[in-house]
Amino acid sequence: HTTTTYPTARRHVEDAGDKGTETVALCPPGRKARQSAQLPPRPRRFGLERHGEETLMGKYGDDSKLIYELQDQGGELLALRYDLTVPFARYLAMNKITNIKRYHIAKVYRRDNPATTRGRYREFYQCDFDIAGQFDPMIPDAECLKIVHEILSELQLGDFLIKVNDRRILNGVFAICGVPDSKFITTCSTVDKLDKIPWEDVRSEMVGEKGLSPEAADRIGEYIQLHGGLDLIEQLLQDPKLSQNKLAKEGLGDMKLLFEYLTLFGITGKISFDLSLARGLDYYTGVIFEAVLVQQKNNQVEEPVSVGSVAGGGRYDGLVGMFDPKGRKVPCVGVSIGIERIFSIMEQRVKASGEKIRTTETQVLVATPQKHLLGARLKLISELWDAGIKAEMLYKKDPKLLKQLQYCEDTGIPLVAIIGEQELTDGVVKLRVVTTREEVNIPREKLADEIRRRLEPCSLSVQSCLTV
Amino acid sequence: HTTTTYPTARRHVEDAGDKGTETVALCPPGRKARQSAQLPPRPRRFGLERHGEETLMGKYGDDSKLIYELQDQGGELLALRYDLTVPFARYLAMNKITNIKRYHIAKVYRRDNPATTRGRYREFYQCDFDIAGQFDPMIPDAECLKIVHEILSELQLGDFLIKVNDRRILNGVFAICGVPDSKFITTCSTVDKLDKIPWEDVRSEMVGEKGLSPEAADRIGEYIQLHGGLDLIEQLLQDPKLSQNKLAKEGLGDMKLLFEYLTLFGITGKISFDLSLARGLDYYTGVIFEAVLVQQKNNQVEEPVSVGSVAGGGRYDGLVGMFDPKGRKVPCVGVSIGIERIFSIMEQRVKASGEKIRTTETQVLVATPQKHLLGARLKLISELWDAGIKAEMLYKKDPKLLKQLQYCEDTGIPLVAIIGEQELTDGVVKLRVVTTREEVNIPREKLADEIRRRLEPCSLSVQSCLTV
Repeated sequence: HTTTTYPTARRHVEDAGDKGTETVALCPPGRKARQSAQLPPRPRRFGLERHGEETLMGKYGDDSKLIYELQDQGGELLALRYDLTVPFARYLAMNKITNIKRYHIAKVYRRDNPATTRGRYREFYQCDFDIAGQFDPMIPDAECLKIVHEILSELQLGDFLIKVNDRRILNGVFAICGVPDSKFITTCSTVDKLDKIPWEDVRSEMVGEKGLSPEAADRIGEYIQLHGGLDLIEQLLQDPKLSQNKLAKEGLGDMKLLFEYLTLFGITGKISFDLSLARGLDYYTGVIFEAVLVQQKNNQVEEPVSVGSVAGGGRYDGLVGMFDPKGRKVPCVGVSIGIERIFSIMEQRVKASGEKIRTTETQVLVATPQKHLLGARLKLISELWDAGIKAEMLYKKDPKLLKQLQYCEDTGIPLVAIIGEQELTDGVVKLRVVTTREEVNIPREKLADEIRRRLEPCSLSVQSCLTV
Repeated sequence: HTTTTYPTARRHVEDAGDKGTETVALCPPGRKARQSAQLPPRPRRFGLERHGEETLMGKYGDDSKLIYELQDQGGELLALRYDLTVPFARYLAMNKITNIKRYHIAKVYRRDNPATTRGRYREFYQCDFDIAGQFDPMIPDAECLKIVHEILSELQLGDFLIKVNDRRILNGVFAICGVPDSKFITTCSTVDKLDKIPWEDVRSEMVGEKGLSPEAADRIGEYIQLHGGLDLIEQLLQDPKLSQNKLAKEGLGDMKLLFEYLTLFGITGKISFDLSLARGLDYYTGVIFEAVLVQQKNNQVEEPVSVGSVAGGGRYDGLVGMFDPKGRKVPCVGVSIGIERIFSIMEQRVKASGEKIRTTETQVLVATPQKHLLGARLKLISELWDAGIKAEMLYKKDPKLLKQLQYCEDTGIPLVAIIGEQELTDGVVKLRVVTTREEVNIPREKLADEIRRRLEPCSLSVQSCLTV
């Protein structure tokens, strides 16, 4: 239940959008409605992003072709949002928000070829967490990585690795390798392919398509095949050429800081400073990261094989300014969790395990042993509902008791509240434990409490799901 | 937190779509991932509804013009979904599901003029609950009304009234008043306006636009201005003309049954059998209902003034069949809760109350009293996070203690975990209660438990939010 807020529930997080609307409506006014009072102004209700220079274009680099354009009858040129980051940035600029931490789970659209088995769709959910504001270096960045580590660990998706790099380091590398500034971004998208295609192909794309000199490509190749930890950072800080590059020096300094913080979080074991990580998108300005599930090849911990990315993000300090009429900047760092991918992995695992699982939380089935007692069932179930018990009954006038008990067996409902003529006259309800078939008569007014008492562990586990 | 599942959490409910994806991703795999295993196949991932005869058209009557058409680059003729009911029906047919109860909270689109203050947008959330399957008459229908009653009561939106009617009764009325079958649906949309415009205007639209005879219009007028309860049902069952009409007789019989069930649920006080209720949409085939917030005019309980609809629904037994190649029917009854409207009402109320409210659940702020202790804060907060405590800290290297305490005052964080040089050497943490300013040293390894212990009531209230 709290899962949507799970990664952030422990921290101060504003909910800037959809969830706010989703969760408030059916909640006792006491809690959530009040809560929503201080939420930041809600984002432009019309979720379709205006298409064209000012909003979507020129922010996704080569991926722009995946933007889901569409023309509405009003003749407005519109497109479906491609991710949650650009809309978030626009939202901050529009509402002059300079300091916010929020999560957002919502749909995005890509004109891509769906691969449903791998959890890739044309319409799919993204789950973003972002920290916006002017803060001391790398503290929010470290928290983002801590959250990714926490999520992937607790979901037990298997072994994973979080690659980190910094756009400034990459640009520094490009610069000292003789790549003209104008080709940094496009070179980035090529480098980004190194996890999918071998270096040779990346190299030939650099030289051919992107028009770099073979020498430049080879020099880049030497750098981007490096990966490691603090040691590598130190090594590069000593690198005669790279250490002379202002951007790279900044990036390496922050990377060192980041690793210090991650060490305090105790998660460096799964973090790899990897110079081949480039991330396709234009808007990153500093640290970038990507989490991949890995399979160990005969204990070569050095070289685990990636089996796909499940989270990615980075720092984008310029994006909000692009939407602000006066260009006021709001530094941001954020991460997107690939929940569709993660969902399909979990789904497959559960299918494989063949476990039988309950799909509901129903605590008790209200049943009758004789005919002409539908009224008694309706009255009792309504009492239980009003007492907050999760109860159901068969939508039949006169169901056979056996059918009702069978239904509990099939759906895993733990308790049956049986009300027959005898129970009605005695003012009791027969409470039956499905597994043990034990039956006890409970005074009707005590039934709800008795059900709660018997299901205590269950409700506890629910709470632990809330607080853990 | 449980709010999205709130109206149905006590009952057996499948989650057929968005929420499934939303809620699984960030949940410990134990619970939700397993849970999802037995969910019905997910709906067509590409949420845009194909536009044209076969899907969206000819199902919304006069409202069809509000369908949000759009043209994608692939040249496919597409439209954004207008509601959740038609997609749900298509989903059942596509997946051959003959028996399901589910809720669904998601966005729908209308090419309407937004009225944001009244919670009306072009893109907005709907919250639907539907019961599909062949069951004994009016039992699921009664549960839908019970749920609406429950939601509106617990949200304390003020006094409300749930109007119920039956399309078969209306059609019967039209028939005996001399309306040709071909004009039933269009006459329905005119009758539906009776809550917005006076009878005279409705009448003239019937005679003018819809081409009914003045006599027919007047006869209809006599009927549709009737409203009441069981008494009115009995009276109409005795009505010489209406009782002769097969459809009307069926409808009245079921209406009587419905009121018996609603009496057992103890909610008839807020239910009104109202013959003027027509509902605009084409697809209803039986009982229809609409919940309105009302203001009592000087205790005339008979004639409360409606201040707007907050929920509506009904039975649609033919819709699934329209999507099934073999026309196999799956009877359905469902309700849509106007959560945007409800949200804006609650938002306004909270604004008016001027209460100061927390927007986060942060339990403790990790603070340091001296400089150069960022590392100590990071280490401690990560321990607390790992222990499931909702902790945060300022993203500053060396924040002043006063600033940190002030932040708690401002945001309502109840506890501060202060770690300074002394505490580090003593292996303790100074736990400060923000309101009382009381401070106690807690052995570091006991800190998480102590925080939980002190916030017990809070976590209890969270649990009660789960189970109530």
